[in-house]
Amino acid sequence: MIKAGIIGSTGYAGAELVRLLTGHKEVEIVWYGSRSYIDQKYASIYRNMFELVDAKCLDDNMEELSKKADVIFTATPQGLCASLVNDSILSDTKIIDLSADFRIKDVNIYEQWYGIEHKSPQYIEEAVYGLCEINREQIKKARLLANPGCYPTCSILSIYPMAKEGWIDTKTLIIDAKSGTSGAGRGAKVANLYCEVNENIKAYGVASHRHTPEIEEQLSYAAGEPVLLNFTPHLIPMNRGILVTAYADLKKDVTEEEIRDIYKKYYDKEYFVRVLEQGDCPETRWVEGSNYVDVNVKLDKRTNRLIMMGAMDNLVKGAAGQAVQNMNLMFGFEEQEGIRQAPMFP
Amino acid sequence: MIKAGIIGSTGYAGAELVRLLTGHKEVEIVWYGSRSYIDQKYASIYRNMFELVDAKCLDDNMEELSKKADVIFTATPQGLCASLVNDSILSDTKIIDLSADFRIKDVNIYEQWYGIEHKSPQYIEEAVYGLCEINREQIKKARLLANPGCYPTCSILSIYPMAKEGWIDTKTLIIDAKSGTSGAGRGAKVANLYCEVNENIKAYGVASHRHTPEIEEQLSYAAGEPVLLNFTPHLIPMNRGILVTAYADLKKDVTEEEIRDIYKKYYDKEYFVRVLEQGDCPETRWVEGSNYVDVNVKLDKRTNRLIMMGAMDNLVKGAAGQAVQNMNLMFGFEEQEGIRQAPMFP
Amino acid sequence: MIKAGIIGSTGYAGAELVRLLTGHKEVEIVWYGSRSYIDQKYASIYRNMFELVDAKCLDDNMEELSKKADVIFTATPQGLCASLVNDSILSDTKIIDLSADFRIKDVNIYEQWYGIEHKSPQYIEEAVYGLCEINREQIKKARLLANPGCYPTCSILSIYPMAKEGWIDTKTLIIDAKSGTSGAGRGAKVANLYCEVNENIKAYGVASHRHTPEIEEQLSYAAGEPVLLNFTPHLIPMNRGILVTAYADLKKDVTEEEIRDIYKKYYDKEYFVRVLEQGDCPETRWVEGSNYVDVNVKLDKRTNRLIMMGAMDNLVKGAAGQAVQNMNLMFGFEEQEGIRQAPMFP
Amino acid sequence: MIKAGIIGSTGYAGAELVRLLTGHKEVEIVWYGSRSYIDQKYASIYRNMFELVDAKCLDDNMEELSKKADVIFTATPQGLCASLVNDSILSDTKIIDLSADFRIKDVNIYEQWYGIEHKSPQYIEEAVYGLCEINREQIKKARLLANPGCYPTCSILSIYPMAKEGWIDTKTLIIDAKSGTSGAGRGAKVANLYCEVNENIKAYGVASHRHTPEIEEQLSYAAGEPVLLNFTPHLIPMNRGILVTAYADLKKDVTEEEIRDIYKKYYDKEYFVRVLEQGDCPETRWVEGSNYVDVNVKLDKRTNRLIMMGAMDNLVKGAAGQAVQNMNLMFGFEEQEGIRQAPMFP
Repeated sequence: MIKAGIIGSTGYAGAELVRLLTGHKEVEIVWYGSRSYIDQKYASIYRNMFELVDAKCLDDNMEELSKKADVIFTATPQGLCASLVNDSILSDTKIIDLSADFRIKDVNIYEQWYGIEHKSPQYIEEAVYGLCEINREQIKKARLLANPGCYPTCSILSIYPMAKEGWIDTKTLIIDAKSGTSGAGRGAKVANLYCEVNENIKAYGVASHRHTPEIEEQLSYAAGEPVLLNFTPHLIPMNRGILVTAYADLKKDVTEEEIRDIYKKYYDKEYFVRVLEQGDCPETRWVEGSNYVDVNVKLDKRTNRLIMMGAMDNLVKGAAGQAVQNMNLMFGFEEQEGIRQAPMFP
Repeated sequence: MIKAGIIGSTGYAGAELVRLLTGHKEVEIVWYGSRSYIDQKYASIYRNMFELVDAKCLDDNMEELSKKADVIFTATPQGLCASLVNDSILSDTKIIDLSADFRIKDVNIYEQWYGIEHKSPQYIEEAVYGLCEINREQIKKARLLANPGCYPTCSILSIYPMAKEGWIDTKTLIIDAKSGTSGAGRGAKVANLYCEVNENIKAYGVASHRHTPEIEEQLSYAAGEPVLLNFTPHLIPMNRGILVTAYADLKKDVTEEEIRDIYKKYYDKEYFVRVLEQGDCPETRWVEGSNYVDVNVKLDKRTNRLIMMGAMDNLVKGAAGQAVQNMNLMFGFEEQEGIRQAPMFP
Repeated sequence: MIKAGIIGSTGYAGAELVRLLTGHKEVEIVWYGSRSYIDQKYASIYRNMFELVDAKCLDDNMEELSKKADVIFTATPQGLCASLVNDSILSDTKIIDLSADFRIKDVNIYEQWYGIEHKSPQYIEEAVYGLCEINREQIKKARLLANPGCYPTCSILSIYPMAKEGWIDTKTLIIDAKSGTSGAGRGAKVANLYCEVNENIKAYGVASHRHTPEIEEQLSYAAGEPVLLNFTPHLIPMNRGILVTAYADLKKDVTEEEIRDIYKKYYDKEYFVRVLEQGDCPETRWVEGSNYVDVNVKLDKRTNRLIMMGAMDNLVKGAAGQAVQNMNLMFGFEEQEGIRQAPMFP
Repeated sequence: MIKAGIIGSTGYAGAELVRLLTGHKEVEIVWYGSRSYIDQKYASIYRNMFELVDAKCLDDNMEELSKKADVIFTATPQGLCASLVNDSILSDTKIIDLSADFRIKDVNIYEQWYGIEHKSPQYIEEAVYGLCEINREQIKKARLLANPGCYPTCSILSIYPMAKEGWIDTKTLIIDAKSGTSGAGRGAKVANLYCEVNENIKAYGVASHRHTPEIEEQLSYAAGEPVLLNFTPHLIPMNRGILVTAYADLKKDVTEEEIRDIYKKYYDKEYFVRVLEQGDCPETRWVEGSNYVDVNVKLDKRTNRLIMMGAMDNLVKGAAGQAVQNMNLMFGFEEQEGIRQAPMFP
């Protein structure tokens, strides 16, 4: 039994961590951090946890928390984790950062896309990018873990086998992504009001979304060459779920079956990645509430273009679930512990 | 480890049973019954279960199934269970019927409200009405269990303490209920299409809904006198959830606090019924995906009328979850096994 | 052609006024008031009006506006209209107040339920309650018009014929109402975020909602005796629409047909009130975007209780549409001008 | 005043025609065709038209109808119009076909993508493709009009200026489109039930959707060269609205401003196409209920790729509204008559 602290426990990702860790056999939550709700009962904010969580919310004191917890999750806005972490903290505890602070190796790219100064660039190199299916062995040894972004997780897993094998022309890569509204967070903004989101679809952050360099960096490692791509996210009137539809020209004359064989080679042993039956398109409803990513491809012979698709729950595999998966690896627990839930439908 | 069969496994309630039983330590599903999808892979119908369920759908052969299973769940339209059950089956297996066939003790009332002939009235008396919080001891001994309806579960638990104590005038009882659309089932009907339900609210079955006599019967037992009431269900554009708002005149001059004390007396030891903090109204979002029923009351001093409220997930506590809870009691498992999930929000 | 000014034009009701008046033959909007967006182009806030409205938002200067406009609509929070109106303004222009400031004749009741001091009680008596179907003649002569609340409009029109005829026992009257989320306004509050409202239903303001005394006052006039009732609103995951389900004991032994005849007597000449066919329940989808109120009743012979139902669009008949209807009466235009749109479905 | 008949008046597009024509000054509907509801009152199927439409539904007798109507709208499945039309009918009346039967000039392509035999290929050449902004002059003279598909309307208008000017490399063209669920029609299918669509997003018809050749044909005319492209539609949990996000490599070194100038050149005089302010992305909520198409572009300098975006209401500009616009042109009415409604929000 380890002790865990959550900084930012009253955001949607933080609350999902509470939900998942509450059902985890090896973890006890000892710190419900929430600067906005200090001293209020956690269950008065998230009434789903009524009678399940008795604790009150605490301030974001990472120093104090590091003495009490074996692992700290930071489910906070960009910049916070980087501004708090130090050697003392890292020698006392492991950190799983759900923000973007340690995802990007080139600090200049981080500062340029995020528009803020990085307060502790000295830890960037050591940080491990926590996409379990790709970096499992390094994750096991990490003490500072950069939990991947929601769009990057779904995008990278959908494209990775083709980028790695060099079967697609990465210069032609376009990712058109769609996300449920929980991805926009719990801040009180007019743009996220029910009546503004309901009965609407829009693109946002076109050619400028911050997840772009994160996806590019990881696919560059896979492809062994620099990848520049277009990434366009859209806001969908639903609570949870991300769908990725990615397009790229094929460099080889192959069949859909051969392509699917590659995907199966990469993912057959991966519990949380499901390569669907031929012809089945991933849909977010089939993964809701679970840590699964469903992927599949469709080859268009007319244009010789490959359509790569992925669906997952942005709060689980795209945030809290993957954080738990990473924690399991970092502490030697069974990788599926606490995140084995079947998707809930409808 | 017991063996369970599900007849009607591809309806929404049946599918929820599959989801819950898949995570239950003591149960193995041996029969995925579905007359509509015989020989098709279950996971091709409910793709959330892809890679989790490998079986194909089977016909509704209860005789054969009774030889293989320790318990049979019938998540089927009214009349089916009553038409199939017989002595031989009941001597081989236990039955948990999610339809209304064995909920109502007076067969005339059943036939009048449901408009069909009851095919096996001889088993009605033995059947136990499976509202665990009220009939726990009889449930433990049951071999034929009538799993309560969704509206009745939420309505009865919201009102029961007041009816039992005799604090409300049951002649003034009005239940205004609201349900998510999964309650309407998975049949292909125009009225349940997305565009017909979305951006709409309507009452239906006004003064004629079949759950009325079920609620009346149970509250009559509680009150010790015949109860006639108004029950009006409404269809809400959401997937899951039932909210009950019930009204009755108080017979005594009491405070809201005294009333809440009665609710706590009845429910404090009940794991799945949560009496909320004073002033908090039950909301379906806080129970989604879980077996909880949240209840609370508001006393209107101006009219001396009591407003009793309850919220639950119609597919869990209102169907599959309560069926599992009943199974746990019938087989001596821990009552919470398999249904301990925290509510999922958002 | 008259000139109209709107104070509060960037709230949902104000924006609906802009939409409706833009299509009105006799009106030109000369003032788009919005304290939050002064000097910003109106069409940059409400992009539906792009290329249709070229004006910028102006401050809430009612004095200046009264010199320019023949009619001022105040679609603002409670208290604002009462704090700004004066003799000079009322001698220059007519005011249609969409807030509650002049709806309630007893200033003590207003101050008690709204929790604010009324700044100009001297105008309350002169103000006309603008429920056109009931007060048409007084409305024609009004210079200060109190536009009814959304819930009251739907509640009163659903119940009025029975209250007026004395067929129901008003002491038993219970109104269970449901509203789409636009009724909660466009303020940036966590409680109204998409993820908080979607997949949820809740009661709110139980036994304390401010529309209660407004409904009671109007039904008291109809019944000729003081009416105290229960009013419970619920928040529904949809943009528009209000549904009222009201219950009362019948004082007479009558048939549903006789009751429906009364409704037809009251409403057959009313363009905007539709008494549905026997057995049809009002649904919000059938009135969306229009000024119609659909009403009907169901008599429960078992309990001798009458269920009275009404559906309308809260932003049209419940706010902006009724305000235009009132303006039409006040200026001698055709009553349907500008609000003749057929409901939009789906 | 002309007389109009609608075949297929109880589908969503047909019903939208009824709504729009009911408010059109120059048209009287004389035939509500609906094979499924013959002899039932139209307003009993679409209760929004209660008290507005008194007629009953009639069979699909185009021969008889052609004697009575000046114009026939066929809002029917593919193949029906082609199987009914003949010289006699066309000499008596004008036809506006909302199905795909006469949209594609090459009958082989039609038969291949639609999988049915074309029953009257002799009329294909004469038929005019009714995209008003592009074919206005031919439309005025047409007697057989092929009303464009929903996706093609939005896709073509979003891309047309760039294809026509030759600024984009059409070999790289990818259209990722998203549609509300009314586009799926009113047929009773499990896939379109509320609980299946809500809280879900999926791609469908990947590399095989029938609107692909229609878009390709029209863009080929514009580009003056054969266009092959990828078109991927997605189903969105909302009633109305289509959003197109299209990608293509630029062939020239131009600025976003220069590109927007081209769009303005093409569309500044077009009432129903709105080129948004720089940086504003089209959103479906801003066009709902109206005949507008909002378009804009974003240039990604990093990849030298252009993102072209468009939003419209699939039932209005994507079906019924455009059909009315075409009718207005064909009969010499004002082009905006009957479809001048401002978009309704929220």
